[in-house]
Amino acid sequence: MTGHVVALCGGVGGAKLAHGLANALQPEELSIVVNTGDDFQHLGLSIAPDLDSVMYALAGLSDPIRGWGRRDETWTFMDALRGLGGESWFQLGDRDLAVHVERSWRLAQGATLSEVTAHLCSALGITARVLPMSDDPVRTRVLTADGWLDFQEYFVHQQCRPSVLEFMFAGAQMAGAQKDVLAALERRDLRAIIICPSNPFVSVEPILAVPGIRSAIQQSDAPVLAVTPIIGGKAIKGPAAKMMAELGLDVSGAAVARRYADIIDGFVIDHVDPIPAPLRGVTFFSAATLMSSVADRLQLARAVLRAADTLVA
Amino acid sequence: MTGHVVALCGGVGGAKLAHGLANALQPEELSIVVNTGDDFQHLGLSIAPDLDSVMYALAGLSDPIRGWGRRDETWTFMDALRGLGGESWFQLGDRDLAVHVERSWRLAQGATLSEVTAHLCSALGITARVLPMSDDPVRTRVLTADGWLDFQEYFVHQQCRPSVLEFMFAGAQMAGAQKDVLAALERRDLRAIIICPSNPFVSVEPILAVPGIRSAIQQSDAPVLAVTPIIGGKAIKGPAAKMMAELGLDVSGAAVARRYADIIDGFVIDHVDPIPAPLRGVTFFSAATLMSSVADRLQLARAVLRAADTLVA
Repeated sequence: MTGHVVALCGGVGGAKLAHGLANALQPEELSIVVNTGDDFQHLGLSIAPDLDSVMYALAGLSDPIRGWGRRDETWTFMDALRGLGGESWFQLGDRDLAVHVERSWRLAQGATLSEVTAHLCSALGITARVLPMSDDPVRTRVLTADGWLDFQEYFVHQQCRPSVLEFMFAGAQMAGAQKDVLAALERRDLRAIIICPSNPFVSVEPILAVPGIRSAIQQSDAPVLAVTPIIGGKAIKGPAAKMMAELGLDVSGAAVARRYADIIDGFVIDHVDPIPAPLRGVTFFSAATLMSSVADRLQLARAVLRAADTLVA
Repeated sequence: MTGHVVALCGGVGGAKLAHGLANALQPEELSIVVNTGDDFQHLGLSIAPDLDSVMYALAGLSDPIRGWGRRDETWTFMDALRGLGGESWFQLGDRDLAVHVERSWRLAQGATLSEVTAHLCSALGITARVLPMSDDPVRTRVLTADGWLDFQEYFVHQQCRPSVLEFMFAGAQMAGAQKDVLAALERRDLRAIIICPSNPFVSVEPILAVPGIRSAIQQSDAPVLAVTPIIGGKAIKGPAAKMMAELGLDVSGAAVARRYADIIDGFVIDHVDPIPAPLRGVTFFSAATLMSSVADRLQLARAVLRAADTLVA
């Protein structure tokens, strides 16, 4: 089958499937919609962690060991900053910093986040279309026993230690969906909408919170398929499993599927997990969802596309 | 003799004598007043090249080979920025960048340049007092055959190639002298005012252009002594000699002395040069002014202080 595919994703885990989809499809067949709720200002720089993770994955620049940031990274800047008594809780690699400085500078000159992202992708040789969910600021905040925390304060500075109670996507109600995102979701040749194996609470739901995106997904005739971020009761990376437990949810792909029930037609669980109890309107698929290699990413992307294609009425 | 010493300086050459003075004197005996006319905004960062050169010299962090920037510098950021199509005409080393980011961030938070400089000096273990000439922006511009150029455009981007016709210190008339600068110049125990071997046109004269500084120097009872930036008809570093030739001036220490005639009591020429023709109100001294080593800096500082002490009425 042909047609356009829209992938929704957050950072590292989702970026791997986005990379697989980019390898499985022609550049013009894919739009990758990226969460910007993690974006923040740090030391005067505009940092967009999920956009960076997606770009680095697509450009083959991700660090394979650390699991975030750029490969062949060096830390001279960070060491020097520490020597000046600067804030050092957020790691800024020397190569990564070039992206933050260039993005911040272009934004300060009046470019939109979409324009800056398109420029950076082009400079990095990325042919797939990478779209921030919005050009307006949306900031994920996390309610913990200590009160509301900015996302990076929770995620990086406090290393996800506080228990979560609730999430807020500040600014989302006033944000406009990036125009190409809505246009892609409304395409007549839309083949599938794929929700990548990203954290539902802080990667996917911020995207869905931008006015127009959730309804465009619900109204689309294309099959909507999500891939589990939970394998065998654990998240491969990040706090998804910990958050589910803290929220009193079952830590399983099935629980994620239930959370997405109003927008998905299909859900891919990992082949190590049992097929969940039936869920109205959702077809379950089973696949090897752990992506340890670039080949795994392509294989999962193909499996997901095949699954989506079976869902067409 | 004891008493307070005020040194005026620009970047690299002047910074060497400032370092020598810092080694020759107790921390509380020295105020180093630094040109900020070279300061500029680049990629959204607030860069203060002369303050940095002075700080690096005093902290023993200057690169001895390149003659500017920090020793043990790495260039990973710059390489990555070039890979993104970013502006690469101004070199930003990874360690140097930490200073620019920390300074920019603190300025953006509302700190003055003086406060930021004091913080950075403290973090780098510098005990001498380093003062920007003003907390207000003053921007040196250079008139060339191609019109007015911003200083860094002329100095770094165009590598001083255009002939100079005139200089302008934009903002100087509206700038306030940094308060500790005026207070230091007005001290009753002032032992000497030393004009370091910096470029007269673009390092020293911007300082003198800030309202109140020139007159405070003229009104001071302390001896004012300048050190030649020209040795044997050449500048050790930078465009001072080239500028003098382009302006139709004799390329010599004597010509620099004439330029400073209304404010100085003494002038130190290099021992390779002949003692100039008498100049009213100026006593000439001869010394080894080339500072190849840290020991040379201290030796020159001591010679300059001895010379100044002989000028006391």
